[in-house]
Amino acid sequence: MSVNRLKEDLIETSQFGREPIRKVASYNELDPEKGVTRPTGSEADKQIRDYAVKCMKELDLEITIDNIGNIFGKKKGNKKDQKSVMCGSHLDSVINGGQFDGALGVFAAIEAIRRIEEENFNNEKPIEVVIFTGEEGSAFGVTLLGSATLIGKLSLAEALSRKNDQGTTLSESLKKIGYLGSTKRTLEDVEYFLEMHIEQGPVLYNKKIPIGIVENIAGIAWVYATIFGEGNHAGTTPMNMRKDALLVASEIIQFVNKRTLEIIEEKKSLTVGTVGKMIVYPNGTNIVPARVDLGIDLRDVKYENMKLLQNDVMNKIKSLEEKFKVKTEVNIPPIHSPAPLNQEIIQKIEESSKYLGIKSSKMNSGAGHDAQNMAEVVKTGMIFVPSVNGISHSPMEWTEWEDIEKGEKVLVETIKKLSMLH
Amino acid sequence: MSVNRLKEDLIETSQFGREPIRKVASYNELDPEKGVTRPTGSEADKQIRDYAVKCMKELDLEITIDNIGNIFGKKKGNKKDQKSVMCGSHLDSVINGGQFDGALGVFAAIEAIRRIEEENFNNEKPIEVVIFTGEEGSAFGVTLLGSATLIGKLSLAEALSRKNDQGTTLSESLKKIGYLGSTKRTLEDVEYFLEMHIEQGPVLYNKKIPIGIVENIAGIAWVYATIFGEGNHAGTTPMNMRKDALLVASEIIQFVNKRTLEIIEEKKSLTVGTVGKMIVYPNGTNIVPARVDLGIDLRDVKYENMKLLQNDVMNKIKSLEEKFKVKTEVNIPPIHSPAPLNQEIIQKIEESSKYLGIKSSKMNSGAGHDAQNMAEVVKTGMIFVPSVNGISHSPMEWTEWEDIEKGEKVLVETIKKLSMLH
Repeated sequence: MSVNRLKEDLIETSQFGREPIRKVASYNELDPEKGVTRPTGSEADKQIRDYAVKCMKELDLEITIDNIGNIFGKKKGNKKDQKSVMCGSHLDSVINGGQFDGALGVFAAIEAIRRIEEENFNNEKPIEVVIFTGEEGSAFGVTLLGSATLIGKLSLAEALSRKNDQGTTLSESLKKIGYLGSTKRTLEDVEYFLEMHIEQGPVLYNKKIPIGIVENIAGIAWVYATIFGEGNHAGTTPMNMRKDALLVASEIIQFVNKRTLEIIEEKKSLTVGTVGKMIVYPNGTNIVPARVDLGIDLRDVKYENMKLLQNDVMNKIKSLEEKFKVKTEVNIPPIHSPAPLNQEIIQKIEESSKYLGIKSSKMNSGAGHDAQNMAEVVKTGMIFVPSVNGISHSPMEWTEWEDIEKGEKVLVETIKKLSMLH
Repeated sequence: MSVNRLKEDLIETSQFGREPIRKVASYNELDPEKGVTRPTGSEADKQIRDYAVKCMKELDLEITIDNIGNIFGKKKGNKKDQKSVMCGSHLDSVINGGQFDGALGVFAAIEAIRRIEEENFNNEKPIEVVIFTGEEGSAFGVTLLGSATLIGKLSLAEALSRKNDQGTTLSESLKKIGYLGSTKRTLEDVEYFLEMHIEQGPVLYNKKIPIGIVENIAGIAWVYATIFGEGNHAGTTPMNMRKDALLVASEIIQFVNKRTLEIIEEKKSLTVGTVGKMIVYPNGTNIVPARVDLGIDLRDVKYENMKLLQNDVMNKIKSLEEKFKVKTEVNIPPIHSPAPLNQEIIQKIEESSKYLGIKSSKMNSGAGHDAQNMAEVVKTGMIFVPSVNGISHSPMEWTEWEDIEKGEKVLVETIKKLSMLH
């Protein structure tokens, strides 16, 4: 049965970057402490890339490695001068993450070509597998690194000179594992990009729907804020003489939540707002907090909703200065704009699901993906499969094999449709 | 001028535990990064103890070191079989603290005996200097260690076997610096204990009053709380599917503040309530917080106010479980009960201030002191001098030399009064 081949790839590669080395074949075998760690340029990154390249070679794909370490494997099409249907994802992982995030999309693409070959399906357009370098940003501090460089959003020189925590550049790291190519790949010969991925959220799992058809990838706006209060002895400083930075921070946390819920109500949107990071100084039970750093994450598939929330949060923070007699500092990293995906592909995925009798649902992606970069340049689509309990970026990340097989079937069918002229 | 001698001691000893070694003689010379660090059993602790013992030897005091490293220096009285007037404080410091917290009380006591000797004052009762081991708890995790062991509240075996971060026991640490004595000191021969200390709060400094006469030392009740939510992807987890531990924590922070202010209003009290410590897990901007640990500090000079606040905080935390679908865990370390100080000593300090024409004000201490342990066993009093800007436990801790001299004069006068039979 063909699912066993994809399953085997995902079990086989689940050992790379897991300490101690161990293959995991079922949810019950997961260890909540021991996930996979495959930062870009690591030995584990090399091992899983080698495994994928071996699979592509067995399919006689034409393999190229570009100047940022992205790997491409091309199956020719039967018509001349046609642009490719590209399909893939990434193989790197977060620190202590799961075995499906990224890897599923790569091995599903490889398996799709296997099945298409077996069927002797005559694809008119070329079909390409792609493996993007460094999607997670777990080693070189920038997410979507390979795709950003590929589409020219990030300069090659800047990308290659980035350093990891050990002080090694990306260039040196890729060279060391044998994946620094010389090709400068362009996307002029690519028509479609399709990425299959785990949802990383609870929507499909809770609704028991195996296929999510992504309509939009949410934009991401961050706010880094620092509250400067006054550190003081918790016993000797009367309540009315304090400038308590943590009390101010608590107002911000509540506002982010309240304002997000209001916008959801007002705009009928799926906005999310999170204060995920917070560091308190000096952080002693008996000291009035002198300073608090906050990291705030705001997302929406509509730019204007996200920007409204970001502005409101920034104004709120500023307004607390006078009320609490503190100073605040706000820092805004570049916004990731929302990416609407291609309607033609969305329709093809929907048709494929219907044709196969597999239940699907249109949805948005709250997580960032290489697809959002690709969407700026080529027609792009994404297929989601359910994450058990909605968990990802965690050793407890899991997707059921039967859902993977359903996703694979829809992927194959969609690729077949896209690879034909009419 | 005699202040110069005490000033010299405090400048000379301000180098011990400061990196790089440097003496500080004025506020302008303070470096906000570089305070003094003298945890119990450190080389700096040895240096300042040696300096104090040298001063006591120059006064021909009868020196004993007890089995927990407390140092006593006794000047005989002229009448037989009289109990001592004991006076002193501690020499250890917090990490990166100031040069007056503790040290002022020790060298003020030594200077008092110098002045009493110079005047040829015939004290009828013995006068004793005391240096308590480990008041701050910066090395062995228990505050007021020397006084707690002395009064029998903490067992000697338990105290001596406590380990610092390097895994060394207090017993080994004291032995290494030469301050593990063999005497088991009792307090049967002590009538009064008097401690001079910096206020560590802003009250005297703001009111420009040089002498604070402490009526009560506030009790301290802590609450350690942990909120167990659910860690999730900040982009893919809809707002209504979250169990955000930090959002719950923000409710607790707001409640502690609000309820403290209500109790102040209701009880006309000087209650303080602080969330000083907070750790967020996993603490990534794009991850819904899975868990938050909080350290909460609650104080009042009345036990019932403090206990009311502590109970209300604990009930509030419990009530959030249902509202936010999280689990909570609460841990209550032993309460330090409020300590009312001795009225006879309070009166003597007041008379001394009036006699010397130095302005004084009765007040409470929000900070904990060895005096609160001593108050359980002997008649105890405290004299406060102003802290510039109310700052302490900080490299910016300072007290003006003229305030120190005023405090010293009141201390000497009070000791003289207490050391006479009538």
